[in-house]
Amino acid sequence: MNAMNAMNATNAMNSINSIIVSIGNELTSGQTIDTNSAYLAGQLDMLGIDTLSHVTVGDDRAVTARAITAAAAEAELVLVTGGLGPTADDITRHALADAMGGAELIEDVASLAELEDFFRRRGRTMVDANRIQVMLPAGSRAIPNVCGTAPGIAATIGGAMVYVMPGVPHEMRRMFAERIAPELPAGQGVVVRRILHTFGTGESDVGERIADLMARDANPLVGTTVAAGLVSVRIAGRAASAAEAERLAGATIAEVSARLGDWVVGEGEQAMPAAVGMLLRQRHQTLATAESCTGGLIGEMVTDVSGSSDYYLGGVISYANSVKRDLLGVGDDILAANGAVSEPVARAMADRCRDKFRADWAVSVTGIAGPTGGSDEKPVGLAYTALAGPDRTEVHRHVLPGDRPTIRQRAAMTALNHLRLRLRNNG
Amino acid sequence: MNAMNAMNATNAMNSINSIIVSIGNELTSGQTIDTNSAYLAGQLDMLGIDTLSHVTVGDDRAVTARAITAAAAEAELVLVTGGLGPTADDITRHALADAMGGAELIEDVASLAELEDFFRRRGRTMVDANRIQVMLPAGSRAIPNVCGTAPGIAATIGGAMVYVMPGVPHEMRRMFAERIAPELPAGQGVVVRRILHTFGTGESDVGERIADLMARDANPLVGTTVAAGLVSVRIAGRAASAAEAERLAGATIAEVSARLGDWVVGEGEQAMPAAVGMLLRQRHQTLATAESCTGGLIGEMVTDVSGSSDYYLGGVISYANSVKRDLLGVGDDILAANGAVSEPVARAMADRCRDKFRADWAVSVTGIAGPTGGSDEKPVGLAYTALAGPDRTEVHRHVLPGDRPTIRQRAAMTALNHLRLRLRNNG
Repeated sequence: MNAMNAMNATNAMNSINSIIVSIGNELTSGQTIDTNSAYLAGQLDMLGIDTLSHVTVGDDRAVTARAITAAAAEAELVLVTGGLGPTADDITRHALADAMGGAELIEDVASLAELEDFFRRRGRTMVDANRIQVMLPAGSRAIPNVCGTAPGIAATIGGAMVYVMPGVPHEMRRMFAERIAPELPAGQGVVVRRILHTFGTGESDVGERIADLMARDANPLVGTTVAAGLVSVRIAGRAASAAEAERLAGATIAEVSARLGDWVVGEGEQAMPAAVGMLLRQRHQTLATAESCTGGLIGEMVTDVSGSSDYYLGGVISYANSVKRDLLGVGDDILAANGAVSEPVARAMADRCRDKFRADWAVSVTGIAGPTGGSDEKPVGLAYTALAGPDRTEVHRHVLPGDRPTIRQRAAMTALNHLRLRLRNNG
Repeated sequence: MNAMNAMNATNAMNSINSIIVSIGNELTSGQTIDTNSAYLAGQLDMLGIDTLSHVTVGDDRAVTARAITAAAAEAELVLVTGGLGPTADDITRHALADAMGGAELIEDVASLAELEDFFRRRGRTMVDANRIQVMLPAGSRAIPNVCGTAPGIAATIGGAMVYVMPGVPHEMRRMFAERIAPELPAGQGVVVRRILHTFGTGESDVGERIADLMARDANPLVGTTVAAGLVSVRIAGRAASAAEAERLAGATIAEVSARLGDWVVGEGEQAMPAAVGMLLRQRHQTLATAESCTGGLIGEMVTDVSGSSDYYLGGVISYANSVKRDLLGVGDDILAANGAVSEPVARAMADRCRDKFRADWAVSVTGIAGPTGGSDEKPVGLAYTALAGPDRTEVHRHVLPGDRPTIRQRAAMTALNHLRLRLRNNG
């Protein structure tokens, strides 16, 4: 295929582009982190629709109208979230009307009936403020909201389809999935994205092993990212059919996995606890946890995975020393001689936890998450993780960088990673 | 002051505007949620610098160059994050050079020495790929990175200051706080933002009670947002001095608090656990937790607050029924007669937990977080929360909407809110 044909093929597969617009002073000012744009971009991918950019603007009618107008001029599909609430800072319906060339706002009779029904079913009184939520620009149509008070709005500006959704994440997600996605035209190509998480080394080491796969014009396109303590390899396969895109992405995943070996934790948001869970399930083994500075975070991560009751028995959050002694049975002598943040206490926590829960494996963490409580001898970030198993107990000492949440997250990830490696290599 | 003067005063206080540009396919495709923009916007606020918009584009040199060029034309300050890594998808330094009119990339000698030192101190071998990270556009200057391999870059495009930072959050934050913020010109006004979280009612109810405070031209500007199970009231006070802006915001916070009463949980990201912690500390009382479906989430939330060891003793994650029985002492007869997700089991978990930990208060949760495990009689979302205190034990039944993480979060928030209300009103 010559260069011209290749370009045409690519264009044909890219026939629909989208821009995602998020509205809210809480977003531009940084008080709230925008999760809606990421959700929508992921959904569009699966429909074969490219996302050119995300744009976030504040609760300003003129600025919002300009952002919608500019997006509609650049992309065939514009998804807007936020600013449909019942209060005075909710200006999106007015801005949309402006971007539609000054459309009048008209009360939508069907939406009003649904809204009254929404309040009736919940036994709540509808206040006058809610009536603004069923006012729509003339020429647009309402999209029912089954779990909130604000209907969405569908409109056309120039050649672009524009959909406005509430900013409340669960309302937006359900509206998009059930009402909007089914009416979007299919993209002519499909992008299948996968992401492989690694733990235990730096981005440059990962990049060096897979450098030849990372050409900018490759298909699948391969990239790396560092976040949440993991170095992650992103793979995007594009093809005319979902099956072919999946095949392309899958082959690259296999190649990357082979090259990165033990660093590879797995795929998905819950890569670390899911990897541990899969290994435990294969072995019909069980896990218990004893947490001090992580305060329940390891248990929370493990149980975030659906089905974790198959292998996770539970844990003790032994935040106070009295709990380490009374609930777990860590001896007063060990605590007094070494202090709570020490190798012997981490070891005793894991051993006693394994006994108490009659579990095959127990992980423990004791450390200083800061910002206070550190000393020259035991600085903030010092953490001991222990892993008690059928044949032995191992303890590791760490000095973890970062702030309190980062230290807690790294301690939890490190403890689970020790379990993953031991299950994988010796189990 | 007439309208013209008012406008001039506002303009004078708004003399620096910024745009935040985030770069990465992982962001446009939705695989990673952008938290850097929110952090930077919050920091700029404190410097009196307005954020006009956030823009996110993919790892594409031409698109990134256009985004930087457009931002530099619209704002006096452009903050760019991402794409400075050592791998082939990191194109930001090239895009910056393009936006500077085709500047050449030159190896920065001082940065190379720092990079070599970075690897030497960690006992790691520097690979050739890392050398690209010290290539800077001619006419720009390096900003040292004390906790990573990529220096930042400072440049001027037209009249705009442009700063490029790594995308790794902890590297970016430290570079911004220590190196960039100190060299930014002070904004001529200061915005003080506060946010008051409420729990227990809907946004329209909150909005109705404070409707008169929400005029679009008011100072402080008041808005409402729904997220993470909370309805939140945002207050932005703007004035020439920080003290005056704080006074304005504080007066409005007090007024809003008075009107919203018991719904008000508090301020800050950790509003619910911090509110509970403050009330416990005032009373010199202690808390323990017994968690089933939340799997450690309540403990994690409580211990996310620094200093929580003053009142939080710890907890039991009683995921398996055997743990409810053996660690907590919930009777087999109660479990057999009612099932694990039931009023009597929630009550027994809280009572036994309070006894075992010798705590003043114990909260418990047992429920079905889904997506599997539900039945007609006990649907997904069914949860019982119990609160055992010095005088009595209360149990509440809930059917919570949403997916697994949402159900777990709402169950945890609801359990802590019962404790908050009881401490506040009867404690």
